[in-house]
Amino acid sequence: MTVRSPDDPIAALATPAASSALAVIRVSGPGSLELLAPLVAGRFDPVSAAGHTLHYCVLKDGEERVDEVLLAVYRAPRSFTGEDGAEIFCHGSLPVIARLLSLLTRSGFRAAGPGEFTQRAFLNGRMGLTQAEAVNEIVRARTDRARGLALQRLGGAIESRVRRAREALVDLRASLEVLIDYAEDRDADSLDPDGGHGEAVDLAPLDEAEGVLESLVRTYRQGRVYQEGMTVAIAGATNAGKSSLFNLLLRQDRAIVSEVHGTTRDWLEGTASIEGIPVRLMDTAGLRDSSDPLESEGIRRTREVIGAADAVLFLVDGTRGIGEEDQRFLDGWEGPGALLRAWNKADLPGVLPAPGGFLPVSAVTGEGLGEVQRAIAAAALGGAPVDGSEPLVDSERQRDLLVRALEAVARLRRAAAGGATPDLLAVDLADALDALGEITGEVTSAEILDRMFSRFCVGK
Amino acid sequence: MTVRSPDDPIAALATPAASSALAVIRVSGPGSLELLAPLVAGRFDPVSAAGHTLHYCVLKDGEERVDEVLLAVYRAPRSFTGEDGAEIFCHGSLPVIARLLSLLTRSGFRAAGPGEFTQRAFLNGRMGLTQAEAVNEIVRARTDRARGLALQRLGGAIESRVRRAREALVDLRASLEVLIDYAEDRDADSLDPDGGHGEAVDLAPLDEAEGVLESLVRTYRQGRVYQEGMTVAIAGATNAGKSSLFNLLLRQDRAIVSEVHGTTRDWLEGTASIEGIPVRLMDTAGLRDSSDPLESEGIRRTREVIGAADAVLFLVDGTRGIGEEDQRFLDGWEGPGALLRAWNKADLPGVLPAPGGFLPVSAVTGEGLGEVQRAIAAAALGGAPVDGSEPLVDSERQRDLLVRALEAVARLRRAAAGGATPDLLAVDLADALDALGEITGEVTSAEILDRMFSRFCVGK
Repeated sequence: MTVRSPDDPIAALATPAASSALAVIRVSGPGSLELLAPLVAGRFDPVSAAGHTLHYCVLKDGEERVDEVLLAVYRAPRSFTGEDGAEIFCHGSLPVIARLLSLLTRSGFRAAGPGEFTQRAFLNGRMGLTQAEAVNEIVRARTDRARGLALQRLGGAIESRVRRAREALVDLRASLEVLIDYAEDRDADSLDPDGGHGEAVDLAPLDEAEGVLESLVRTYRQGRVYQEGMTVAIAGATNAGKSSLFNLLLRQDRAIVSEVHGTTRDWLEGTASIEGIPVRLMDTAGLRDSSDPLESEGIRRTREVIGAADAVLFLVDGTRGIGEEDQRFLDGWEGPGALLRAWNKADLPGVLPAPGGFLPVSAVTGEGLGEVQRAIAAAALGGAPVDGSEPLVDSERQRDLLVRALEAVARLRRAAAGGATPDLLAVDLADALDALGEITGEVTSAEILDRMFSRFCVGK
Repeated sequence: MTVRSPDDPIAALATPAASSALAVIRVSGPGSLELLAPLVAGRFDPVSAAGHTLHYCVLKDGEERVDEVLLAVYRAPRSFTGEDGAEIFCHGSLPVIARLLSLLTRSGFRAAGPGEFTQRAFLNGRMGLTQAEAVNEIVRARTDRARGLALQRLGGAIESRVRRAREALVDLRASLEVLIDYAEDRDADSLDPDGGHGEAVDLAPLDEAEGVLESLVRTYRQGRVYQEGMTVAIAGATNAGKSSLFNLLLRQDRAIVSEVHGTTRDWLEGTASIEGIPVRLMDTAGLRDSSDPLESEGIRRTREVIGAADAVLFLVDGTRGIGEEDQRFLDGWEGPGALLRAWNKADLPGVLPAPGGFLPVSAVTGEGLGEVQRAIAAAALGGAPVDGSEPLVDSERQRDLLVRALEAVARLRRAAAGGATPDLLAVDLADALDALGEITGEVTSAEILDRMFSRFCVGK
């Protein structure tokens, strides 16, 4: 991959390529207002416009008018990217968008790569790297909870914690450097053959750094679940009420539009927000032996779906109790997903008492549904949700670097306990600082940035 | 349908509901900046902001931060709608959009109906009715030519022509009124039992009005074709080269993304811009008798597709000449679409001379393709395209009213020729003026407007 030139004027569509009331085309880079100027019909000159102002104008391609637009002018350094730039609010018309993008590239703009605006915002010091990643995370969020978590990261919640850990380690580095200088001076002065270092290193700053980093690492699993979601298969005998519960779970949260695709005899699928987690929910065919080859095929596929799910919600008709097929399924359960057990039809008078481990629920009245939802969430999160005020790490990159930093800190501790010299300790400390610097972007290469931002959407 | 209240503060998403870099939520109406103010975290107050300015801020729902946004502030009367309003540029995240729309409706905004912003722009005198219709036409345009035509209408090209015709008729009305007053005076003075009206009415203004209106009406068919497009089926024997020509036509214009959906044995479909016309192109199965029931079913459906197309491009393999099946198809052709004939494989040395009425073409080299494209366009347009500087009428509503005005003018002419009195002529003239007033929106009812704008997209 070639490293992106950070000085080209770039342009990209920032809204989806579909017809709608409005579309927004974003341009940024040194000279971008000068490149726009000849495209504006009439007297208005974007070059002389103040930042953060909007201007009605007509854009033209040669002599032909392309569209009536509003032009938002941004001035370096007070812009998203930190560069001069503009946003063109044109009609949300596919031929208008196509014509304007072609006009811009013919006028000296390069088509922006994915995430290139945010990459420039980072390079120009407008935001830290964890905040830049949060820009993508907020766009890709699928539930309101995921939105809130990404916004928290966008506000710098992870950035500030990593910086705090880093500062503690920088303090330690300063102490080590004093000791190293001292040791060198002493060596030079006395040529002491013993070379010992009587001074004890104060490792207290490690405690703070480790505390901060460990609590961030622990949030990764939950952060990941809120952002990436999970798959839940509803399984059980034919008349256990699977489809009713499936529909009830889908209806509960209207924030996500659920599309249910029916396939002939396999399973129904929909998406719901369960306790803020985007859940792909599958209503599988009833499990039973069958001599009908078509039905057997459906059951085979159901087993595949169940085997691949993050959690299986196994439903038993509580008025009939655990049948032979149910027992066989429960006995044969091997995972790897979590197995949740629910005792359906809890609203009926003839319902049997739920055995231990079964959650009573009624797919008709909704009674017990909250418990089922919380059990699903807990299975995904690996426990209760973390306190809402704590930021959750969603990025695998950040998690890996946090782990690297913690491993370096652990090595440092072992070395110090083994009586290593300050200059040896400084090597482990540099590793830890390096990993933290990569998280915030203070230490990183252009290639790594290019790769990271290429996972963003275009126009962001 | 209830008449929309024009004084509510309204809100709607103006970009497609899909995740992307940016989304735009538009609000408008008296008091809308005051309603936004409590949602802004921090010191910025939209109520005191100047029009056409952009402001970075965080929107909050109670104490919870919803998103970091840019807020564009617009001030009556210098805004699209003519009212106070704002645009919220938020992250193009589905949960952000859902949360902000819910926050706005809970804060006193009503969800805007389709086209309601443009309706207000019209009601507040920001644009004429033909221009308001053009806003929708530009959004719905599918080719660059349709975009250019809609932009011309948006600029007021039809509006100004209709006004010119109307002014001519208003002049005539003034002359008639003088005559009516004069006749009344004379009747009152002399009680002349003859009641004659010796004064000749000068009908010259009718010529100008008729000229303008007739040339507008004539453009309707072409205007419609550029906006709505046409369907072209490629037919012919199995090895005539239909699929090659189909692919070549789709490849010619990259401005429109063509999606080709294959169905088992029926036809392939794609969309291309041919001479600026959005064309739905269908590659049908070869026509021949078959005893295979599945193939027969495919051929039956092919005949259905061909029967419903606006034009059929019948392809013959020029190296083989017109076969028995070809001849049977050509002899049996009944329309109602246009039949175009092409003589394929014109690049091969062994090709036979094309018979009269057949366009030589090569689906391999592209030779002759321009002629085929122009023939397709001419079949749809009913002749050569109208000169590019003339506006084309696309709206059925406008066409119907133009026809009504012309009919009233024709009645007026007949009545004048028959010696009708000025007050009788004035009745036909009033009809004509009324129809023109409806085109520009000077004469119209709230119900008609509601119905018209409800065909727009939401957020426009």
